[in-house]
Amino acid sequence: MQADIAIDKIEEIVAQSWQAFLQYRQMPLSKRAAFMRAIAQALEDCGDALIFTAMRETNLPEARLRGERARTIYQLTSYAAACEKGEWLEARIDTANPAKTPPKPDIRKMLVPLGPVVVFGASNFPFAYSTAGGDTATAFAAGCSVIVKAHPAHPDTSAIAAAAISAAAVKCNLPAAVFTHVYGASFEVGKALVTHPKIKAVGFTGSYTGGKQLFDWANQRKEPIPVFAEMSSINPVFLMPEKLQQEAASVAQQYAGSITLGVGQFCTNPGLLIGIESEGLQTFIDDLGKAIQQIAPAAMLHAGIVKAYKEKRGAALLQEEVHLIAESAGAVKDNEALPTVATVTADAFLKNPFLHQEVFGPYSLVIRCKDMNEMVTVAQHIEGQLTTTLMATENDITANEPLVEAVKNICGRFVLNGVPTGVEVCLSMHHGGPFPSTTDSRFSSVGADAIKRFARPLCFQNWPNRLLPDELKNENPLNIWRMVDNELTKAIVS
Amino acid sequence: MQADIAIDKIEEIVAQSWQAFLQYRQMPLSKRAAFMRAIAQALEDCGDALIFTAMRETNLPEARLRGERARTIYQLTSYAAACEKGEWLEARIDTANPAKTPPKPDIRKMLVPLGPVVVFGASNFPFAYSTAGGDTATAFAAGCSVIVKAHPAHPDTSAIAAAAISAAAVKCNLPAAVFTHVYGASFEVGKALVTHPKIKAVGFTGSYTGGKQLFDWANQRKEPIPVFAEMSSINPVFLMPEKLQQEAASVAQQYAGSITLGVGQFCTNPGLLIGIESEGLQTFIDDLGKAIQQIAPAAMLHAGIVKAYKEKRGAALLQEEVHLIAESAGAVKDNEALPTVATVTADAFLKNPFLHQEVFGPYSLVIRCKDMNEMVTVAQHIEGQLTTTLMATENDITANEPLVEAVKNICGRFVLNGVPTGVEVCLSMHHGGPFPSTTDSRFSSVGADAIKRFARPLCFQNWPNRLLPDELKNENPLNIWRMVDNELTKAIVS
Repeated sequence: MQADIAIDKIEEIVAQSWQAFLQYRQMPLSKRAAFMRAIAQALEDCGDALIFTAMRETNLPEARLRGERARTIYQLTSYAAACEKGEWLEARIDTANPAKTPPKPDIRKMLVPLGPVVVFGASNFPFAYSTAGGDTATAFAAGCSVIVKAHPAHPDTSAIAAAAISAAAVKCNLPAAVFTHVYGASFEVGKALVTHPKIKAVGFTGSYTGGKQLFDWANQRKEPIPVFAEMSSINPVFLMPEKLQQEAASVAQQYAGSITLGVGQFCTNPGLLIGIESEGLQTFIDDLGKAIQQIAPAAMLHAGIVKAYKEKRGAALLQEEVHLIAESAGAVKDNEALPTVATVTADAFLKNPFLHQEVFGPYSLVIRCKDMNEMVTVAQHIEGQLTTTLMATENDITANEPLVEAVKNICGRFVLNGVPTGVEVCLSMHHGGPFPSTTDSRFSSVGADAIKRFARPLCFQNWPNRLLPDELKNENPLNIWRMVDNELTKAIVS
Repeated sequence: MQADIAIDKIEEIVAQSWQAFLQYRQMPLSKRAAFMRAIAQALEDCGDALIFTAMRETNLPEARLRGERARTIYQLTSYAAACEKGEWLEARIDTANPAKTPPKPDIRKMLVPLGPVVVFGASNFPFAYSTAGGDTATAFAAGCSVIVKAHPAHPDTSAIAAAAISAAAVKCNLPAAVFTHVYGASFEVGKALVTHPKIKAVGFTGSYTGGKQLFDWANQRKEPIPVFAEMSSINPVFLMPEKLQQEAASVAQQYAGSITLGVGQFCTNPGLLIGIESEGLQTFIDDLGKAIQQIAPAAMLHAGIVKAYKEKRGAALLQEEVHLIAESAGAVKDNEALPTVATVTADAFLKNPFLHQEVFGPYSLVIRCKDMNEMVTVAQHIEGQLTTTLMATENDITANEPLVEAVKNICGRFVLNGVPTGVEVCLSMHHGGPFPSTTDSRFSSVGADAIKRFARPLCFQNWPNRLLPDELKNENPLNIWRMVDNELTKAIVS
């Protein structure tokens, strides 16, 4: 087990990270992309050692971890491609107009990196949202240096990924401090990093308590900095009447799978299922219960998460008017979670804020509404979410606009007739949402748009062509898309 | 004089604004643009009444105010054009791939409005950054409803602009509460608005104290919301040695004009002039002093600003090692500001945080550095700025990379051989910058990119084409640029 970094060492590592940032940001996009591809290759080269270490530290199965490494590599390589293509730079050029009164100067702008970024990884994705995960990859694409605080639940996995990144930095002749890996189980380490004046942004994936604390520290600094924290989400699913009337049984099967996928340890796990009292809903509840009974308990990520699941599940089931629908019929070991579904009336749900909180694990609550009006009220009272899902026929949608509009207000991604689990890595993905699902609904942590969290516009006024960055030169040497005098083009500026 | 809104009325006006938002956001871009053009026309139709009222309330001269109205109209019409063109929506489409394991769903996203926005206008731009100014225009373009708290220094001007907006809303058949105008000189009104749960963003232009207070209130909410506050900036100008050697006299003339333009009441007013001890710098100081003596004192916006100028100017001149270079030789009336330039060594400047603060008005401080190293140190110790300027030959730039890089870190707009005053309204303009010049360096308050402050991505997964918003439909009925499977195109999706 690695020792926590001493607080008085933080000054030194941040100073080094700052110096590395000043060098790294001047490197061309192609060099950043090469670095990211080298990290991807290094992760591949880690071979089974990385997989087996993660299996030991997270209880996640081998196939899942091999899949997650492939996803992490795809993130790095696809974000590298996006980095090089340069659309994210939002390059804009307005040419001079000396005939105007007063004369209009030549003005050009593009995004530039913010500075050293501190990344706090997630325990539930030891590769894809941890040390070499999405936050680190997008910060490198933006041109930032990165300091990762290893997740205490998988320190050895983190060390292997960190070594891969450092090896890639060496291979690409980058300053070593472009990436720094530290340990720190204590609050003090996180706080010292986030409040250091030379740290310019923070990426976090984890609990509400953790993310909100970082957000508060960052905003209380003399110079507040942006924190993108992806926190809690219970991912409500609205089960519309005609849909349930037609397909209650198959929807129940689909959701039994989604609720228990990966032992319910996805941030997009569907924790609320909202329907209207009807024969269809009763069929759904019955079938969901039967399906959940068949699903075997499985080991969670670490002891702290199992403990929290047992406590939160227990407390949820004790709430007034909450009734157990079913739980897994299998025998449960100490480190395992018992798949569980329960139900409550909308009226009781609306009165009890406890039931709006996430129970992280294979647990979901079915909310029974009297009618569509009550379903709309429920939608209006749910806090911000990463995702919401509508299980609906086309009639259900067109006949219930107030519901659809209310649901739009509370989510970042709006799924129709599917499950929220499964977050595709692509540009159109939005993995974000209104507070408390994240701390800033305007940004995503998945997809190449996530780069923009770590960059800001810098505008050049009246600079001669040869002194401008390549991205903004007349001849467009990088062949990127730019807005020139309000038109998108790759053309040279004449 | 209008009465402050009663605190217990705020619930009602915000509820109405929320309802209006739900209707307005569903309207097509063309309708939003038509509304913005109708406001522009209504401002034009206000005729001389608007100008004369503003002259009375702000002491600004007629020609300036006519120019500012034209600018405000241009903001509205050019942002309307950008709104309709739709690049700001960041529409992205990734088509389905059923052959992938697991199958890749159809995913599409675009920006949608945040909700009701509260705007606090500036006193120094009674049209362009007040009631019908840039924040209001960009919030409307984004699809938000707006509540403006009138600036207490120009209540009647604000009332006329508000009436113009309301008339435009009527003309366009919009719900009246798409725009609400309230008075509130007290802190309580501002706080009640910013902390109301249905308010989703804030735009502010003004003092550091005011903006930071709004930022803190917004972040201490149960659901924090984004605040874009444009606050203080002293807009440092770096006078490079070869440039001064060649052109000290003409640079001095240019800056005497910029320092006193509009009685120094621009947020881009150059408050620091940094040079290296030399014959060139001495010539610059001498000529700047002579030029400043020739410039007549002029009336400031209101009594509070004159008082603050006198106090801050006085305090600045009393600081250790600060020496007066020159002040206007003209007689000064009670409501007027005395143009002033002073000087201090870099050493004294670096030791005295008071000298880093803005003296809002026609005042500028010349900082004398021993050498280029000290100039770099000064650049490293100045806080975030809207603009920085380099007065430099090409040799000055290429020979002094550490300085140029240090200056980039502290600014949003980097002017070469010009003056920072004069903010062109165009897409490539960045009017923003690192804290404390603004509360979020990633956004601008000028140019159509300012729309993005008030919008967030919403992602649609697996929706049939006919139920998608027009912006994301296969056939691209709005003919907007979209990223389709990672390529920018206006083509239909087949």
